[in-house]
Amino acid sequence: MGFAVLLLVGLVSVAEAADRDKLLSEAGVYGTFAAFTLDDDWAKEDQATRIAYLTVLRGVVDQHREKLAIDLYLMRGLSDHADIMFRVHAVELREAQKFLLDLQSSLFGRHLKAAGMMHGLTKKANYVPGLPDQMKADLKGASEPGPKPYAIVIPIRKNADWWALDQDKRLALMKEHTEAALPYQKTVKRKLYHSTGLDDLDFITYFETSQLEDFHNLILSLEKVKEFQYVRQFGHPTLIGTVISLPEIIEVLAQ
Amino acid sequence: MGFAVLLLVGLVSVAEAADRDKLLSEAGVYGTFAAFTLDDDWAKEDQATRIAYLTVLRGVVDQHREKLAIDLYLMRGLSDHADIMFRVHAVELREAQKFLLDLQSSLFGRHLKAAGMMHGLTKKANYVPGLPDQMKADLKGASEPGPKPYAIVIPIRKNADWWALDQDKRLALMKEHTEAALPYQKTVKRKLYHSTGLDDLDFITYFETSQLEDFHNLILSLEKVKEFQYVRQFGHPTLIGTVISLPEIIEVLAQ
Amino acid sequence: MGFAVLLLVGLVSVAEAADRDKLLSEAGVYGTFAAFTLDDDWAKEDQATRIAYLTVLRGVVDQHREKLAIDLYLMRGLSDHADIMFRVHAVELREAQKFLLDLQSSLFGRHLKAAGMMHGLTKKANYVPGLPDQMKADLKGASEPGPKPYAIVIPIRKNADWWALDQDKRLALMKEHTEAALPYQKTVKRKLYHSTGLDDLDFITYFETSQLEDFHNLILSLEKVKEFQYVRQFGHPTLIGTVISLPEIIEVLAQ
Amino acid sequence: MGFAVLLLVGLVSVAEAADRDKLLSEAGVYGTFAAFTLDDDWAKEDQATRIAYLTVLRGVVDQHREKLAIDLYLMRGLSDHADIMFRVHAVELREAQKFLLDLQSSLFGRHLKAAGMMHGLTKKANYVPGLPDQMKADLKGASEPGPKPYAIVIPIRKNADWWALDQDKRLALMKEHTEAALPYQKTVKRKLYHSTGLDDLDFITYFETSQLEDFHNLILSLEKVKEFQYVRQFGHPTLIGTVISLPEIIEVLAQ
Amino acid sequence: MGFAVLLLVGLVSVAEAADRDKLLSEAGVYGTFAAFTLDDDWAKEDQATRIAYLTVLRGVVDQHREKLAIDLYLMRGLSDHADIMFRVHAVELREAQKFLLDLQSSLFGRHLKAAGMMHGLTKKANYVPGLPDQMKADLKGASEPGPKPYAIVIPIRKNADWWALDQDKRLALMKEHTEAALPYQKTVKRKLYHSTGLDDLDFITYFETSQLEDFHNLILSLEKVKEFQYVRQFGHPTLIGTVISLPEIIEVLAQ
Repeated sequence: MGFAVLLLVGLVSVAEAADRDKLLSEAGVYGTFAAFTLDDDWAKEDQATRIAYLTVLRGVVDQHREKLAIDLYLMRGLSDHADIMFRVHAVELREAQKFLLDLQSSLFGRHLKAAGMMHGLTKKANYVPGLPDQMKADLKGASEPGPKPYAIVIPIRKNADWWALDQDKRLALMKEHTEAALPYQKTVKRKLYHSTGLDDLDFITYFETSQLEDFHNLILSLEKVKEFQYVRQFGHPTLIGTVISLPEIIEVLAQ
Repeated sequence: MGFAVLLLVGLVSVAEAADRDKLLSEAGVYGTFAAFTLDDDWAKEDQATRIAYLTVLRGVVDQHREKLAIDLYLMRGLSDHADIMFRVHAVELREAQKFLLDLQSSLFGRHLKAAGMMHGLTKKANYVPGLPDQMKADLKGASEPGPKPYAIVIPIRKNADWWALDQDKRLALMKEHTEAALPYQKTVKRKLYHSTGLDDLDFITYFETSQLEDFHNLILSLEKVKEFQYVRQFGHPTLIGTVISLPEIIEVLAQ
Repeated sequence: MGFAVLLLVGLVSVAEAADRDKLLSEAGVYGTFAAFTLDDDWAKEDQATRIAYLTVLRGVVDQHREKLAIDLYLMRGLSDHADIMFRVHAVELREAQKFLLDLQSSLFGRHLKAAGMMHGLTKKANYVPGLPDQMKADLKGASEPGPKPYAIVIPIRKNADWWALDQDKRLALMKEHTEAALPYQKTVKRKLYHSTGLDDLDFITYFETSQLEDFHNLILSLEKVKEFQYVRQFGHPTLIGTVISLPEIIEVLAQ
Repeated sequence: MGFAVLLLVGLVSVAEAADRDKLLSEAGVYGTFAAFTLDDDWAKEDQATRIAYLTVLRGVVDQHREKLAIDLYLMRGLSDHADIMFRVHAVELREAQKFLLDLQSSLFGRHLKAAGMMHGLTKKANYVPGLPDQMKADLKGASEPGPKPYAIVIPIRKNADWWALDQDKRLALMKEHTEAALPYQKTVKRKLYHSTGLDDLDFITYFETSQLEDFHNLILSLEKVKEFQYVRQFGHPTLIGTVISLPEIIEVLAQ
Repeated sequence: MGFAVLLLVGLVSVAEAADRDKLLSEAGVYGTFAAFTLDDDWAKEDQATRIAYLTVLRGVVDQHREKLAIDLYLMRGLSDHADIMFRVHAVELREAQKFLLDLQSSLFGRHLKAAGMMHGLTKKANYVPGLPDQMKADLKGASEPGPKPYAIVIPIRKNADWWALDQDKRLALMKEHTEAALPYQKTVKRKLYHSTGLDDLDFITYFETSQLEDFHNLILSLEKVKEFQYVRQFGHPTLIGTVISLPEIIEVLAQ
């Protein structure tokens, strides 16, 4: 069954893809995290209908591949907040809106209920220029190759005291924070989005790992540094799921 | 399809419009922000029915154009709080209520679920008279012309300590606040509504921009000034959407 | 249409009314604020059915007029918390319960969903006897005649520090509070209910006005006095609506 | 109609009742407060069906009378949290679970939605042995005879500072608390349940009275003593209703 | 009826079971607590259909017994948060996700609504190595044999001050905490899961007992030690239920 679906889907993917690497690495890119639950009617559709709808999902994603980098996560079975989550990278936030509008008005999207939406902006690292050279060099170390199946999104809001600190004090605190994080650089990939004003957060922190215990220990280390005293929201919700490809999610949700 | 709709709609718009410029610029005007989600049945209606209902929306707006200035925002695809939002300016709040009653009892409105309602009053600037002359002059600088597609609404509540400060101390704090905001005046349009007693807020702050990163940096700057220590609610929810005309929303929602 | 309804309704109103003036002015009377939303099926009933149901509402109100003073408010179009609100004054709270039970089991009431219920007790003024004579005299000044279309309900909870103050300190604070409120006495009518133990509040404050900006300025003034530092809940929700008669609400909801 | 129901029901009540007096007065007994709302379909059933279902309710209660003391409260019309509430006393909490399982799987129970559940344990009075003899004697004074129609349940959580106090300091504070409560002993019946660990509370306080204003003044007095500074949750929700017998509730809900 | 079900179910259980003892005792194992409510349609299915669906549940559990240790709890009748809860132990969290995906897409699972999901990791005891030898010996004492029908799950979050303490100070506080808990070791079984980063908690504490009053007194003792001052979330929700086998739950839910 999974095979037939893949074949069908393969024929549809003809649009030119956006420069995914650039969108995922450069500053000045908007990242939208859109989490959804499937409605009660989804389970009542027969399998053929569900496969048809999922093929529509593939079509909608393809239509927007030219301007966006779209990643997909399976939250069901790990999170009570959502069943699936999209991460969309775009140079203009309106492009992400267009994709999500098309998604929600599609035959598949009519079974989706918005469970959470967050937006952030990638920016040049704020504090790295002020860090010691050795730390800068360490930060450039790549993470281990190989698949990183787990993805975790932790929204963060700092308190007013943090923003009232001058840049030097914040730099000193972020140096300690960075030192605590460095040992986990190899096994836990991190990406930071700045979201002040775009939603009710200051930062969206995104993690990928195959070593979930390392990720747990990383967060534990970050809670022990002084900077953590300035955090007024950490998670709430913490969104945990697994990285999944479009063909794989079609197979999972068709069941 | 979009063209046919526009034609139909064009014929209906015959009512005399309110003095929109006055409503949008003078003091003593009430601004109502009414956000709605579309119910589950909306997507199940066929396209012809949806177009008919959206034409009804146009009719309801036209009926109230004599007394109100009505703006429309598309939240879907950017916000998990609402699909559409109306901003209504009225000299008497009852007039906004009449419009929203007519809207909700219309064939279109029966598919709407109230997702949030806020009211505020425009007032003469509280602190500007006390600011230095140069700052007053700078504040008069117009924002850059051209469309500003993004609209953001941030509700604000100050804490009891703020209100306990005397006028001079509040003026000094608002001077610093204004200085931090000035660099963004050209690319981010702002409008302030006072809502103490009218809902569970003190202020509704409204922004329009085409440069979302400038808006992000503006809010970041405002979080770094002392006045921010007196803010007990900032957002929650932050409502982000795009400015949309009635014909455009008909096209989007008819899909 | 409205005329026909009024006629029909007029014939039903035969019960002897309670002494409304006494219930609305004396101490030792319970005030219940019961807010409701209309369910999704309401809009789907045809107009004749809706009129029939609204006539039932009139009948239920009439049945209880002997023991209760019942006021009605239209919240829809101004509040996202409720569509309609009843204010019921009774010497025994059980009588209000009986009315609301009859209402909810009526054909009209089956379309209502409880959106909030608060109870308070009218008591002799706590602090007025300790105020200066001039202030006492000023407090006796009547509010301006004429309709006051807007009604606002603000629930209040004081913190533990407030209740730990001795009577003299509370009197001094309430004197300042009363001074701040006096200038608005003519245009904003106020009524106070004590609700400690009867629900999760200490006070229900009720306001009527035709000058909404005066009401806004009144609340602003009250937030600036020291007593406000002891308030841990103010609103949440603030309920804003318009005073409406039974015949009028029948006309509005029949549409 | 009510009469016929009572007759029918009377024939069913044959099970041996638990020693209700013991369950309601001894230490080491579990009290479960289970609040429910009726679903939307309840009102749509015709009266005969509703009476049949309510007879089933009577049957379920009878089945468990051997091991449990079951009290019933009508919340509808006074509380927006629930329509009915059961108070169940049991020596083993599992017995209360069995009753509620039978209730929820019964034809009547299928119309119930759980609105709140709290469990507490009756214990020997913690502080009474340390009180002065006169106070001990006063505490033994019985409450006035006669029906007490109103029942109020106030859940309470103390803060960490309270639990960190030594027994002597807590005793001194509870002495002041008890003094404040004594004047209301005649008209307000109280019962205390300890619930630490059994749910998210420390205490469930239960009150019965015919003099609601006395109850209001009792709570007001308790908010003015020092011990109240250690309370971090008081109510939320406060559950207010009227004591009702099984035959009476059948009559009310059959309407 | 129960007997026939057991027979049918017995034939299906052929898969090789995971090493349950190891999963339940070793460090480095993930524990997932997944709570569900049954939807409104469940009660409307006839008994034969419900039995068929529950047999499917048995099948899904059996399919995953090779890699997982799965425990089941009946929450209905004791908790308003959930009807049933699964506790799943797995070496890889993805395996728990696979089970829950299969469960939710099964005919039985389509009647389940996710009510809460928490993940934690078992780790070697943090503080035990630093405790006095006598306390270490006492901690090794086994709990009394015999069934422990009650299960309680209390999620815990510590505040930033806790994480800022150095290891020695935390050890001293945990020594006092352990002393307070020791008297209850015989009658209350405890198990600790570390969940920082995996959800919005720091710890999941799990308890089993037949002596609910002892459990209540244990938690009361733990609230009185200094370490409790560093707890910012304790419960919320506290999940209380009874341990139940698969055959038993089939019998209960088939009713």
